[in-house]
Amino acid sequence: MPQEAVKPKDRRRGEYPVHVEVPTRWADHDTYGHVNNAVHVVMLDSALNGWLMTASGVDIRTLQARGVVVHTELDYLRELKFPDVVTVGIGVSRKGRSSVTYDIALFTEGHDEPTATASFVHVYVDRETFTSVSIPAEIEAVLRRLVPET
Amino acid sequence: MPQEAVKPKDRRRGEYPVHVEVPTRWADHDTYGHVNNAVHVVMLDSALNGWLMTASGVDIRTLQARGVVVHTELDYLRELKFPDVVTVGIGVSRKGRSSVTYDIALFTEGHDEPTATASFVHVYVDRETFTSVSIPAEIEAVLRRLVPET
Amino acid sequence: MPQEAVKPKDRRRGEYPVHVEVPTRWADHDTYGHVNNAVHVVMLDSALNGWLMTASGVDIRTLQARGVVVHTELDYLRELKFPDVVTVGIGVSRKGRSSVTYDIALFTEGHDEPTATASFVHVYVDRETFTSVSIPAEIEAVLRRLVPET
Amino acid sequence: MPQEAVKPKDRRRGEYPVHVEVPTRWADHDTYGHVNNAVHVVMLDSALNGWLMTASGVDIRTLQARGVVVHTELDYLRELKFPDVVTVGIGVSRKGRSSVTYDIALFTEGHDEPTATASFVHVYVDRETFTSVSIPAEIEAVLRRLVPET
Repeated sequence: MPQEAVKPKDRRRGEYPVHVEVPTRWADHDTYGHVNNAVHVVMLDSALNGWLMTASGVDIRTLQARGVVVHTELDYLRELKFPDVVTVGIGVSRKGRSSVTYDIALFTEGHDEPTATASFVHVYVDRETFTSVSIPAEIEAVLRRLVPET
Repeated sequence: MPQEAVKPKDRRRGEYPVHVEVPTRWADHDTYGHVNNAVHVVMLDSALNGWLMTASGVDIRTLQARGVVVHTELDYLRELKFPDVVTVGIGVSRKGRSSVTYDIALFTEGHDEPTATASFVHVYVDRETFTSVSIPAEIEAVLRRLVPET
Repeated sequence: MPQEAVKPKDRRRGEYPVHVEVPTRWADHDTYGHVNNAVHVVMLDSALNGWLMTASGVDIRTLQARGVVVHTELDYLRELKFPDVVTVGIGVSRKGRSSVTYDIALFTEGHDEPTATASFVHVYVDRETFTSVSIPAEIEAVLRRLVPET
Repeated sequence: MPQEAVKPKDRRRGEYPVHVEVPTRWADHDTYGHVNNAVHVVMLDSALNGWLMTASGVDIRTLQARGVVVHTELDYLRELKFPDVVTVGIGVSRKGRSSVTYDIALFTEGHDEPTATASFVHVYVDRETFTSVSIPAEIEAVLRRLVPET
């Protein structure tokens, strides 16, 4: 598993199998005149769910199983400023029966080193009972593109 | 109708029949180091829907009819800064069969004159068909508190 | 002034001299499963300030004069849903010494009729004293592209 | 270090030395009809910075040193729904020369067990050079209330 040996902050743009663009917004800035750290989480959440919908061709909101983010981790390396357009690199570091751990990084234009790195754990739960269920087949099908070949 | 004769910016805290407190948040600030103007709309939308739920004792999200904001108007008079706690004053200036026009103002602590004034038009629509319907009885019952006596 | 004769909701995509794309985000949705009305204001504010920066080549945050949104008006015509990419059409309906009234509309892909229309009044104020000042020359230069020829 | 022995999810409301209330907002909900996970980060960031300002009596935005959130970790245990008022419990698990690790939990009314737990690392940097500096004396003074006695 070479992905594990390299720290996320030392990984580069090209190592992420999927790239999604998310423009920053004027209101994303906070008091310190840069994009607020919580907004990084908003952006990567949006990139990930958007990609799952586009890649699978399925409106994931209509599925009986929902991917709930049970764990979020974010390492902030550099400032983002409006109007930066962020490229979100998405990979999968671990996949179980009902959960997926995404390995994510944010890149700004012209930079190969990340401006922030993150990890997201989705657990699939039934939308009514909130008990864990298997990853839906539609999602499984597209996750294959994100798992490093062994 | 004395409410019409006085401009919203000249109305005072005590003239609004309902008051709801909404604290600002750190992330509400934008590049200019004050609360972003769009966040004023977020705050008054939240105050209004929260009051409708509390006052009626009904989770309005479960009703078949939904109040959709078809018209928003906001006049910005002064800056808001975190950690200001805003008092949202709410009144009704017009009520029809399926629509309500709210007359809203934001006040900061210790001030009787508004920091911003706003108007919001809710039109009730069926949650499935999106066609206009009558204001639900549960909402009608609490709106009486907001309409100026004549 | 033919622009005044036609209601904003009856104007079409091609009538707006400037177009800016703003993707919706997953978190823009609210309880009702559509983009929250206040987020429309966030999106058009971002499109407008972003365009002013790009078109003028100036980081407007470094100017001594700041455009503060003193009046916002939004008419909501149709629902927006993630992952819609919104095209924000921007024009100018009125320009004074220190203020500009923008005439704005939001369009979704493949539609010529607006999903929402809006009006925004920027008043330029000194960043320190908050008193009104003339529109900066850098901004004046690009506004010419937005004013309908007479 | 008894704090280390107990997992954050097993800690209770009374174990956090500081409590700050943060009401949810209507727009915090996402497509799934609950507060979006990223909003949890917005809320705890706001609670922490607000408390630092209130407790120290200093507007931290005027200090030469700024606490930048270089690491965020969030464990989501239960759904939050508007109009829940969240109590943010704040403690400190580690304090260095220029950094502080906060141990944070979110509680809903009437519950002693957390709805989410989090960890936040602030590194103090010079606002101009962005190089790390010592924790400002004003902040040090109030952090003592958050560090468990030994």
